[in-house]
Amino acid sequence: MIIREAKQKDWDAIWPIFHEVVSAGDTYAYETTTDKDQARKIWLDSPRKTYVFEESGEIRATYYLKTNQAGPGEHVCNCGYMVSSAARGQGLATSMCEHSQKVAQALGYRAMQFNFVASSNEGAVRLWEKLGFETVGRLPNAFKHPVEGYVDALVMFKHFVE
Amino acid sequence: MIIREAKQKDWDAIWPIFHEVVSAGDTYAYETTTDKDQARKIWLDSPRKTYVFEESGEIRATYYLKTNQAGPGEHVCNCGYMVSSAARGQGLATSMCEHSQKVAQALGYRAMQFNFVASSNEGAVRLWEKLGFETVGRLPNAFKHPVEGYVDALVMFKHFVE
Repeated sequence: MIIREAKQKDWDAIWPIFHEVVSAGDTYAYETTTDKDQARKIWLDSPRKTYVFEESGEIRATYYLKTNQAGPGEHVCNCGYMVSSAARGQGLATSMCEHSQKVAQALGYRAMQFNFVASSNEGAVRLWEKLGFETVGRLPNAFKHPVEGYVDALVMFKHFVE
Repeated sequence: MIIREAKQKDWDAIWPIFHEVVSAGDTYAYETTTDKDQARKIWLDSPRKTYVFEESGEIRATYYLKTNQAGPGEHVCNCGYMVSSAARGQGLATSMCEHSQKVAQALGYRAMQFNFVASSNEGAVRLWEKLGFETVGRLPNAFKHPVEGYVDALVMFKHFVE
């Protein structure tokens, strides 16, 4: 597995992963109808860093890292992770989260925050907890799940420096 | 006091309020060095609505309203409020928050969320509580205050519809 920063020319390979995850509407706070150009701005152009996990020349997973809040909040970063459906169950989310924490610390961030984890996404919540994240907020009915309806969204946080 | 939507030509009058508040670095998660053009994008161009409170032809206070999270989160809005130093202590923050809640409900939002209230800003925290907001999250040391150093930031939330 090669882990490297994404380039513009990777977008054609990243887009199907983004589209599959986002159009399902059950994990990310993006419009489910986000098109390929809008998605490139969100995932590749706006973040501070975007990485891809590549195996046998195919992109299996991707994540972004950005500053979560500017100015007085700029010491805390935020990340988002996506795994292609074909590559799930292989620990790629764990690998990405661990990689992103190293990158974040190398960039000088003191903490990482996830702003909007659907509480219905129990696998993700358990995984982030296992990787050292703590639930520091619960936004009541803030996430509209396509099947479960309004569910709470969680704010999860991990300090690198106390 | 006239309450009306802001127009582009109001920016020269809004900017000194924005600059005064943001350059202090003790309340908003914007770069303290944000310049006039960047600030116009943040406060006037990007939000869904921006309002001004005008008295004797002078703009005393301003707020924005925007969708807090897209897609599955788009039923929750976010607002930010600023009062010129000359007009503080007259209840303008209360008036703006009440006005914004009415606008939010008219636009169909089900709730309002403040993402990043510096816990050191005790007057604001008390005011939002009085106006029906609940602290639903506490981000440890997420706000770097210019005098107090790292302090917690609060996530505050109010439902219009249960």
